[in-house]
Amino acid sequence: MAGKKEKPLFVTFEGIDGCGKSTQAVMTYQYLLSQKYKVKLLREPGSTVVAEKIREILLNRRLRMAHITELLLYEAARTEITAKEIAPALANGTIVLCDRFYDSTTAYQGYGRKLDIRMVKGLHKVAVGTVLPDLTFLFDVDLKTAFARRGNKPDRLESQSKAFHNRVRLGFLEIARKERRRVKVIDATGPADEIFQSVKKILLRRLSR
Amino acid sequence: MAGKKEKPLFVTFEGIDGCGKSTQAVMTYQYLLSQKYKVKLLREPGSTVVAEKIREILLNRRLRMAHITELLLYEAARTEITAKEIAPALANGTIVLCDRFYDSTTAYQGYGRKLDIRMVKGLHKVAVGTVLPDLTFLFDVDLKTAFARRGNKPDRLESQSKAFHNRVRLGFLEIARKERRRVKVIDATGPADEIFQSVKKILLRRLSR
Repeated sequence: MAGKKEKPLFVTFEGIDGCGKSTQAVMTYQYLLSQKYKVKLLREPGSTVVAEKIREILLNRRLRMAHITELLLYEAARTEITAKEIAPALANGTIVLCDRFYDSTTAYQGYGRKLDIRMVKGLHKVAVGTVLPDLTFLFDVDLKTAFARRGNKPDRLESQSKAFHNRVRLGFLEIARKERRRVKVIDATGPADEIFQSVKKILLRRLSR
Repeated sequence: MAGKKEKPLFVTFEGIDGCGKSTQAVMTYQYLLSQKYKVKLLREPGSTVVAEKIREILLNRRLRMAHITELLLYEAARTEITAKEIAPALANGTIVLCDRFYDSTTAYQGYGRKLDIRMVKGLHKVAVGTVLPDLTFLFDVDLKTAFARRGNKPDRLESQSKAFHNRVRLGFLEIARKERRRVKVIDATGPADEIFQSVKKILLRRLSR
């Protein structure tokens, strides 16, 4: 096979609910497919049988759980997707795109729920081992824009308060500030096509290395 | 209320499947009730709505999951039972009896699955915080006796190999060796009534302090 098709890269798409990351993940997936790359698109939490069952518990709005329980369930789902999907795909020379990964947990459970950030990051290490994202897009929008973009069926997390989501947004920006090389902040206020041009530019630069 | 009724104590019952710990937990519960203690009997994983849902995933024999996923799910269920049942009961002056707790995870996932023991113990701390058992009974039997005592519907863990269960048994004994003050090893080979006399003796000594 051509070298181009065998370059593995692990790319994650992050940001608050309504930032447009899922749309950008799909656009990136379709673009890479059109360019004949071997590419796989995953979402978190979920993507394996066990992880989807964990997702059901996490997104069930009627269930009240301790913040640490929620944290551990996200990490459990992450271990599954990492061990069963991400690591094998990368080993196979496939580019992996993941809609949310551990930065979401740092932002939501760490900064949002005010859990200890070092403890949260320690759990990421337990969950993913050495499978770290090579490149992360952080789609940043203000809360008003994000809330306006959302559908009508908010899941448990989406029904949380505005103050919570503001902490999450600032948490994501803090993560980006601490890991500038990996995390690229994209202004996600405009139309999807325009945002994708920024994504594509960074992605192509990374793929051409 | 009388002082006797207000003495909280957190007691856990541990050992390999078929060691008789659940029987002893029930006998202890009934004995303490008969003596007018405020007492609560719980089982792990489970005992809360969220924890029971996690239990369903863990004990579903058709599901294959990574060892770390299993570990994180046990800890998630533990956080729930600790935050929602154990801590409030102890704060309320109730004696809490728990059929399995974190020593089971150290023994099964740590020693049995050969995960890093330090990492496993670090997760216990995340899951339970400062809610530590005051007293733990480890019911020790040889594998032959334990296997003979089991029912006909083995769950996912029970269908594992003999070598695995041997590592788990030795793991439990290692835990007891390292924490002699908390963990009391009981020879669980004989009849239940006889074993309970040993349990009762240690328990009464602890309650009279």
